[in-house]
Amino acid sequence: MPVTKSKTRVNAKEIKKKKNQLIYFFGRGQAEGNAQMKQLLGGKGANLAEMTRLGIPVPSGFTITTEACAFYYKEGKKWPAGLEKEIEQNLARLEKTMGSGFGQRENPLLVSVRSGAAASMPGMMDTVLNLGMNSEVVQGLIIKTENERFAWDAYRRFIQMFSNVVMGVSHETFEHILEKKKEQLGVKLDVELKANDLKEIVRQYKKAYEEATQEEFPSDPKIQLFKTINAVFESWNNPRAIKYRDLNDIRGLLGTAVNVQAMVFGNMGNTSGTGVCFSRNPSTGANQFYGEFLINAQGEDVVAGIRTPEPLDNLKKQWPVIYKDLLKIRTRLERHYKDMQDMEFTIQEGKLYLLQTRNGKRTAQAAVRIAVDMVKEGLLNQNAALMRVPAGQLTQLLHPSFDPKDHKKKIAAGLPASPGAATGRVVFSADDAEVWAKKGEKVILVRIETSPEDIGGMHVAEGILTTRGGMTSHAAVVARGMGKCCVAGCGDLQVDYHQKLFRVREVTVKEGDFISLDGSVGEVYLGSVKTVPPSLSGEFGKLMKWADQVRKLRVRTNADTPKDAQVAVGFGAEGIGLCRTEHMFFEGDRIIAMREMILADTKEERERALLKLLPMQRNDFYGIFEVMGSRPVTIRLLDPPLHEFLPHGQDSQQEMASVMNVPLERIREKVAGLHEFNPMLGHRGCRLGISYPEIYDMQTRAIMEAACRIKKKGKKCAPEIMIPLVGTEKELNVLKENMEKVIGQVFKEYHVTVPYSIGTMIEIPRAAVVADRIAKVAEFFSFGTNDLTQMTFGYSRDDAAGFISTYVAQGILEKDPFQSLDQEGVGLLMKHAIDIARKVKKDLKVGICGEHGGDPASVMFCHKIGMQYVSCSPFRVPVARLAAAQAAINEKD
Amino acid sequence: MPVTKSKTRVNAKEIKKKKNQLIYFFGRGQAEGNAQMKQLLGGKGANLAEMTRLGIPVPSGFTITTEACAFYYKEGKKWPAGLEKEIEQNLARLEKTMGSGFGQRENPLLVSVRSGAAASMPGMMDTVLNLGMNSEVVQGLIIKTENERFAWDAYRRFIQMFSNVVMGVSHETFEHILEKKKEQLGVKLDVELKANDLKEIVRQYKKAYEEATQEEFPSDPKIQLFKTINAVFESWNNPRAIKYRDLNDIRGLLGTAVNVQAMVFGNMGNTSGTGVCFSRNPSTGANQFYGEFLINAQGEDVVAGIRTPEPLDNLKKQWPVIYKDLLKIRTRLERHYKDMQDMEFTIQEGKLYLLQTRNGKRTAQAAVRIAVDMVKEGLLNQNAALMRVPAGQLTQLLHPSFDPKDHKKKIAAGLPASPGAATGRVVFSADDAEVWAKKGEKVILVRIETSPEDIGGMHVAEGILTTRGGMTSHAAVVARGMGKCCVAGCGDLQVDYHQKLFRVREVTVKEGDFISLDGSVGEVYLGSVKTVPPSLSGEFGKLMKWADQVRKLRVRTNADTPKDAQVAVGFGAEGIGLCRTEHMFFEGDRIIAMREMILADTKEERERALLKLLPMQRNDFYGIFEVMGSRPVTIRLLDPPLHEFLPHGQDSQQEMASVMNVPLERIREKVAGLHEFNPMLGHRGCRLGISYPEIYDMQTRAIMEAACRIKKKGKKCAPEIMIPLVGTEKELNVLKENMEKVIGQVFKEYHVTVPYSIGTMIEIPRAAVVADRIAKVAEFFSFGTNDLTQMTFGYSRDDAAGFISTYVAQGILEKDPFQSLDQEGVGLLMKHAIDIARKVKKDLKVGICGEHGGDPASVMFCHKIGMQYVSCSPFRVPVARLAAAQAAINEKD
Repeated sequence: MPVTKSKTRVNAKEIKKKKNQLIYFFGRGQAEGNAQMKQLLGGKGANLAEMTRLGIPVPSGFTITTEACAFYYKEGKKWPAGLEKEIEQNLARLEKTMGSGFGQRENPLLVSVRSGAAASMPGMMDTVLNLGMNSEVVQGLIIKTENERFAWDAYRRFIQMFSNVVMGVSHETFEHILEKKKEQLGVKLDVELKANDLKEIVRQYKKAYEEATQEEFPSDPKIQLFKTINAVFESWNNPRAIKYRDLNDIRGLLGTAVNVQAMVFGNMGNTSGTGVCFSRNPSTGANQFYGEFLINAQGEDVVAGIRTPEPLDNLKKQWPVIYKDLLKIRTRLERHYKDMQDMEFTIQEGKLYLLQTRNGKRTAQAAVRIAVDMVKEGLLNQNAALMRVPAGQLTQLLHPSFDPKDHKKKIAAGLPASPGAATGRVVFSADDAEVWAKKGEKVILVRIETSPEDIGGMHVAEGILTTRGGMTSHAAVVARGMGKCCVAGCGDLQVDYHQKLFRVREVTVKEGDFISLDGSVGEVYLGSVKTVPPSLSGEFGKLMKWADQVRKLRVRTNADTPKDAQVAVGFGAEGIGLCRTEHMFFEGDRIIAMREMILADTKEERERALLKLLPMQRNDFYGIFEVMGSRPVTIRLLDPPLHEFLPHGQDSQQEMASVMNVPLERIREKVAGLHEFNPMLGHRGCRLGISYPEIYDMQTRAIMEAACRIKKKGKKCAPEIMIPLVGTEKELNVLKENMEKVIGQVFKEYHVTVPYSIGTMIEIPRAAVVADRIAKVAEFFSFGTNDLTQMTFGYSRDDAAGFISTYVAQGILEKDPFQSLDQEGVGLLMKHAIDIARKVKKDLKVGICGEHGGDPASVMFCHKIGMQYVSCSPFRVPVARLAAAQAAINEKD
Repeated sequence: MPVTKSKTRVNAKEIKKKKNQLIYFFGRGQAEGNAQMKQLLGGKGANLAEMTRLGIPVPSGFTITTEACAFYYKEGKKWPAGLEKEIEQNLARLEKTMGSGFGQRENPLLVSVRSGAAASMPGMMDTVLNLGMNSEVVQGLIIKTENERFAWDAYRRFIQMFSNVVMGVSHETFEHILEKKKEQLGVKLDVELKANDLKEIVRQYKKAYEEATQEEFPSDPKIQLFKTINAVFESWNNPRAIKYRDLNDIRGLLGTAVNVQAMVFGNMGNTSGTGVCFSRNPSTGANQFYGEFLINAQGEDVVAGIRTPEPLDNLKKQWPVIYKDLLKIRTRLERHYKDMQDMEFTIQEGKLYLLQTRNGKRTAQAAVRIAVDMVKEGLLNQNAALMRVPAGQLTQLLHPSFDPKDHKKKIAAGLPASPGAATGRVVFSADDAEVWAKKGEKVILVRIETSPEDIGGMHVAEGILTTRGGMTSHAAVVARGMGKCCVAGCGDLQVDYHQKLFRVREVTVKEGDFISLDGSVGEVYLGSVKTVPPSLSGEFGKLMKWADQVRKLRVRTNADTPKDAQVAVGFGAEGIGLCRTEHMFFEGDRIIAMREMILADTKEERERALLKLLPMQRNDFYGIFEVMGSRPVTIRLLDPPLHEFLPHGQDSQQEMASVMNVPLERIREKVAGLHEFNPMLGHRGCRLGISYPEIYDMQTRAIMEAACRIKKKGKKCAPEIMIPLVGTEKELNVLKENMEKVIGQVFKEYHVTVPYSIGTMIEIPRAAVVADRIAKVAEFFSFGTNDLTQMTFGYSRDDAAGFISTYVAQGILEKDPFQSLDQEGVGLLMKHAIDIARKVKKDLKVGICGEHGGDPASVMFCHKIGMQYVSCSPFRVPVARLAAAQAAINEKD
């Protein structure tokens, strides 16, 4: 028995610590704790104390601190010295307050024992109700309540909960007894059981307990209590609680507190009840009291969902006085906490008790509305309102979502690679996607992984599902850029391109079957699910305006086309931080010229092919400059390895051979020659620019010719040319000199000049290490955190999704570093780079254009290390704006 | 004419600089310069001054400084102010010293004009002899020398040299005239031409000059001189000079000096001559005067190789007095410079002149012998001797080399991946290599790239040639480990596996044809070339002993087998710094058990397969421990991705299916499932250890069981277990805990304990960035600079050889960072890691086990940043020992 063990092991040193209070009492308007003490008392305990102080009716009780739980784990499951004594003292105080006796037959005190950590972990840890019951006490309860049935039912419930929570006896054992009894009696509902039936059930429950545990059911209420406290401590580290904390990023807590509270009963007849309510509508944010309740029920009955609860309006009708009290409490609590509250209440024989209050969870839409309304109502100032909306949630508002009323059959889960909801028929190739789409079908493109060749198919698809690749895989990056729903790295799927089907466990999905994707959570559903379109409220616009007023970081977007640029400007983008030029080479005839360039053996042939691409690229840039006006546009020169522009399949190579009128063998040889074992670390980026200067020359010319034409039309543009994959200062030097020559020529030909700058990506770890040298040459830095993360960790972003998820599950990584910047490692390297670079060039402009530019935590980090801007996909621009504002407010505070 | 231009552009500022001396005179026992002034006067000029000071007969002259050359380039090919005046002053001084007149008919002064930079660049820059000649002077020379033929021949030679060096007229133009003349006259040799014939040739030469340059041949000796000085300045940046400096890593020099010296003639008849001699034998190092000479010849005749020079012994016989003088000078110079000298001399009518002395180039064997002998002779102390031997040359002594007498036809060049020389018949697969070798054939294995599957074939091959991959590619690393000759990344070869042949330009080499490889220089020869075996001298041993006395770095080896370990211990290895365990999984039946493990779907199946591998691995380690005794043995747990252990070809997959009795489809699926786009950044190293803990558990058990068995035999061993690819402290934590559990069990089972430690590779950039955190857990660090370089630069070591060579050629990279550590970038990261790690763990043991551990410059860097040891392939151990000694000596000085 751990309790006595811990008692005997108390030593001198522990006794000295006695002055540390292990228990905080609350009751009758007075409390030792308060709402600030969440770390020590847990959220539930701190708020029970606070409500008590506010004079709100709360059943009296006490909270055992999270430090006691931490001690329990640290010292091999022993209690801290003095805990037992403090429990006894507080029990006595509780008895006195309630005027009843724990374990006494006359006027017995029953208690609830509930867990409660500093962060909300609903349903993850254990609770025992009606504790303090035994065969004597039940008799006293019958006398006290004059309700024999209630008393036996309470006893029955207690045995079941205690057996399950403390001793691990399965619920089924007890449900089985109950069902058998009902069968015997020919009744269907629990409520049809009489007092005597329940008494018999209690007998059978005890017997079942003895069989399962080989010991008698404890009748000493103190032993019941001590064992339950240990069970709650244990529940802190049960697998589902650990998993929950991992998934919800809850870290650094001491453990759970334990709340021991006098029982109140909502199931004492038709003047009793229990319910849950929100101070505002958690779905819409409307300022209306919202909730539901059940008459003659305990909280667990609401959760079990056997009876359908009634809306609060019915409470108003039936018990107007209680409703009024509750409404007062709602207003009181909301004004006190200055946030929307989620409350639990119980009515025992006409008397109202609050059992819990906490800040309520809400949809993004509700979060925005509540924040803005509360400013209107004078409850919050603008900055406080900005801090109230989780920036990451905002994307929910910009994409379609599934109709919550429609049924969903989940068949698999992957990474939430690009938010939104989509339904369509499955196709397995980009070509098929285009064919089906032309016929008017909505399609979902399912691939093991996508490549630049697939752009066309991705464009027409409603959504994209891949089995490999992580948050920064090709599919994920492109989908986010397009604002298209994508679930990536869904490893459970086995795709068979040949048979055009995929399997996931027992389910087989063939080409043409409907599936649905939720890119915001990364889930895949069988069949078609209804979607609802997004709608942006006026409150949203207001909140964004406030954010813009306070933030210091500028927010740009990653956009490759005038259309994307237009969308992003609509969302508030102040420039383009990354315009990739490679996607431009895939459309229509361009790919042919591009392939001619790649097949060329001499510089002259390459230049000839590039000359065909020049006017097309120039038009691309012209279109983007037109949209962006005087806003800066950072254009990254060609980055991917050349093999990505060649077809790899037998058929498509044959097709290329006929279109271009070259022998198939030539194409095969070129593909083989360009093959690399690790293309991410291969001949790409500025390495191509050095090997084939004519490529970057052409791109530079296209950019500056477009800029000169804009200028000649009397309009403005602000091109920034960015060189990818720079690792040494000399690479940049050589390329910059070449480019300046070309730019000089263009200016001469057009008889105008346009201001421009030439800068570099910082995406190779070495570039960050020697950033001071590179800063001598570069006119700006943009951190390419996708590649930087990839190389700093040595994780291929196309392959690593599998082991990264293992790492996150095991707590080796806190988060997928492709989703949220690894501040400790990659971040340190970035900070180093900025610090040494600014020593050389004080005002160096620094930004980020990796996918992290749209992740709130990463945006805050970028603010902290002194960047001037972040850049992210169009649909994440509002997220970045809000996160940047929150970073600025955090800094001020 | 640049000369006058420069004169007119002299400005006030430049005149003020006048006090900077631009010319240094030497003559008649006095000199303004000395041997310390190589940077300013070039090696030749400094040594001419020094010899003059020593009283050695040197034709008088003067040296124009390298600063003048630097000015010439910096200021757009202008001369510094005052240069012309200083030339005139020094010419006058020279005339006075010589008692002759420049451009005078009576007793004319002729001069030679020679380049000479601070570093020796033999034959790279230009020389003009006999300058000062015109149609007047030739008459005077006839009178002075009473040798009409000589005078006209001197004139002829001058015109040809001047025309070629200064005006770029081709040699062929003049050779053609000469040949035609000889044909006309029906003679074969130049010496058969009479004075009149030569006079006619001079006329024709001048005409040819005028035709080629459209101007008259300059008759003003000063103009001849000025133009020639400019031509020498220009020659500093001719393409072959630039290339030579690049290849020989000569950097940071100002330019070339110009040496103007009174002519002496070795071709004035049979009492004249010219020669080259070494103070010791440059091949063997033997302390014997060594050289050759030609009677009646100028230096160029020796170089041209038309007449065969005679050995010095003949000089001794013919001219004993001169020989004795030369011998005295040899001794004087060697004692003065304390190094073996390479000297040029001319005898003019019985009088000896020294034209040059410099430290002589020598073979590795000679370098060692000379250094050791000079200590014996009291010329050097031990440390000075250690500094005299270039550490990198030592590998020459440990491998076979080609017989220098045998003919070689070079067909291609690649990277010198693993030193040595090999001849054999070409095969194109590892299997073929084994088949041919069994038949007793010597084979050269030619592959696009090798993989672990090829180990068997590599083992039986004489040498390995690959077309892809760099200095740290699989082929290179494995070959060095085996001490086997390898040329890697030979991109000119086009290998056709199907037809079993390779092509390189016009040459086609088929299976079975002989080729030869020189892995020390990276060259490929057609046919069979004789090799000579290595032999280690007593001097080598002595030098190594001295090195061991002074060095602070310990030197370990990278060895995977008892045999390699034995070899390395023979070369002085003090431990194993890297024992790779993956190669152990390929031999015989092991690969089957390994594949069972990979195909397994459950942990239990994997454990069953691993149980088969356990005794094999245990035996491997036992054997290595036996060889190494109490020396530390660092064993790296499994590192490569699992797909490397599966066959990728159709046939071999079919074979595996029949051997293992599983469906082919199962194997194909597994291979496809394990495929990664960038395996270097994939699921390997400790990531496997986390996903499949049972693999590392088995390896840990095998290591410690072997160690316990050694202990039980009363012997010692010192295992260090090393975890690869760690990027976060938590990875190491999790794995270390697992391993300690296993080790505890093994100790319990064997009833003994063995001291051990658990450490980590630092090869992921992130690990270096957060090394302080990792140091909390790791008991030692070993830098894996292959991977660290790969990821810090973002260069795939299997793919990057191509663009790295472009980068090196263009000067973007100083060296291939896989050959010699990038101290600026990767090195900075290493230094950072050591510095922050030692703050946490003051005495943390730190070493390096990347291939850089055998590169002298890298070893010196490792010393500088405070490592305790380096580890390299067995055949580089002596290199590392010497480099470590040199680092320690450098530090002391």
